[in-house]
Amino acid sequence: MAATELISALLLFLLICSSDISSGEKTRRPQPCKRLVLYFHDILYNGKNAQNATSAIVASPAWGDKTTLAAPNRFGDVVVFDDPITLDNNFRSAPVGRAQGFYLYDKKEVLTAWFGFSFVFNSTRLKGAINFAGADDIMKNTRDLSVVGGTGDFFMTRGLATLTTDAFEDDRYFRLRVDVKLYECF
Amino acid sequence: MAATELISALLLFLLICSSDISSGEKTRRPQPCKRLVLYFHDILYNGKNAQNATSAIVASPAWGDKTTLAAPNRFGDVVVFDDPITLDNNFRSAPVGRAQGFYLYDKKEVLTAWFGFSFVFNSTRLKGAINFAGADDIMKNTRDLSVVGGTGDFFMTRGLATLTTDAFEDDRYFRLRVDVKLYECF
Amino acid sequence: MAATELISALLLFLLICSSDISSGEKTRRPQPCKRLVLYFHDILYNGKNAQNATSAIVASPAWGDKTTLAAPNRFGDVVVFDDPITLDNNFRSAPVGRAQGFYLYDKKEVLTAWFGFSFVFNSTRLKGAINFAGADDIMKNTRDLSVVGGTGDFFMTRGLATLTTDAFEDDRYFRLRVDVKLYECF
Repeated sequence: MAATELISALLLFLLICSSDISSGEKTRRPQPCKRLVLYFHDILYNGKNAQNATSAIVASPAWGDKTTLAAPNRFGDVVVFDDPITLDNNFRSAPVGRAQGFYLYDKKEVLTAWFGFSFVFNSTRLKGAINFAGADDIMKNTRDLSVVGGTGDFFMTRGLATLTTDAFEDDRYFRLRVDVKLYECF
Repeated sequence: MAATELISALLLFLLICSSDISSGEKTRRPQPCKRLVLYFHDILYNGKNAQNATSAIVASPAWGDKTTLAAPNRFGDVVVFDDPITLDNNFRSAPVGRAQGFYLYDKKEVLTAWFGFSFVFNSTRLKGAINFAGADDIMKNTRDLSVVGGTGDFFMTRGLATLTTDAFEDDRYFRLRVDVKLYECF
Repeated sequence: MAATELISALLLFLLICSSDISSGEKTRRPQPCKRLVLYFHDILYNGKNAQNATSAIVASPAWGDKTTLAAPNRFGDVVVFDDPITLDNNFRSAPVGRAQGFYLYDKKEVLTAWFGFSFVFNSTRLKGAINFAGADDIMKNTRDLSVVGGTGDFFMTRGLATLTTDAFEDDRYFRLRVDVKLYECF
């Protein structure tokens, strides 16, 4: 092969290489670098279930109280939670961590919520935390929150969490399926 | 052109290319990859305006209540909101989405706030959400919040939101101009 | 040197260059690009210390109130704060900024908290804000929150904040040492 042919091959390689650089961010989009599907279970305090409750209303609008969800559509209720995380949808399965933080209901016309919370892991398999924030348009089949950071095994991660309501029983229990797709891993 | 000259040109290109790599993060700073200017409108519940109110005090310090902003400087009041987002500063314009989440007032000496909320879009033009968090030093002409993530059209985005108080009427209404500058787009 | 030898050297350089690209994200992990160690001081309002208090309970569960931390383990209490930040652990040192936002206690069995807040700087040395979110497993010696964004001198930054309880006095005062390690700087 002549030197000029080699140089042509190099130039082609450089072009590919440089276009990779310029579109560097985009290449992280299609495939998550890590993915976890987990469930968490929320039992709201109603004044009588202190033993079982994993969450409690701590703030409510002027027309609300702390043992009944406000009407209409729970608008203004703020709930603090410490919910078990399980690998399958069975509430009795051994938890792999806790979902801890808060959610608040933020629309009068329909059920919507806003979440700020963490998945806190402390098992042999998983250490550290994943931190979430975002809007939950509850009436949609699936909706996405942001993964805004992580610690330990999830150092500096970012991504999306797709929520599905896997079950709910009147006002007292819900179970969310969380499909965590991480697009930045370190 | 001789082969050696071509090689020199290649080496120069490589140096530029590699310096681009090492300063890769910085090159994203100066120019946003996406920019939106939007307005949102907040009408606080005062005990009498349930029809029009888009927000409500849901928590307050020991000395406060849920229909009057606390003194001094509203310190400790937490407000949940579902505010219309418009493309111009007219409250009656057709909303393109909702600003949903909470703010809290966090200083006794002067008005400052902390926001955790989302712009939730659901129009033909825009789908998805932008998630915000950060401190709002209200008395400054402009102040910046962080865009900590996004979904849908705003998948995994990051950036800044520059707030300006576009209008306010006593304690009951304010309008914020939000200049969203996204520096990471996918 | 012959043209072919130069080309071989170039190819080797290209390989190194391209492997740098593919592992680009990982190279940011080991060394922070910026690091700050700061302290912040929290004095909780107890109904009698309005002059000195820097924080106040603004929400609590049904069994709590706003001048006493709830039992057990303060679960459900939400606190808004405006705490001075100092460079050393002396409460009387000149503050370099304010830690502003909220924390909430989120476990019945043990003390744990969730934080959403900002370090707001406004000195000749530091301008702008660092925004934090995450779980605080208080009983551990050290625990990590996420730095989810920043403004001003901390434009678009991300990283970790390692918290240590540097001091606490019954229910009324605590001092946190915050080791801020930023891994994305612009």
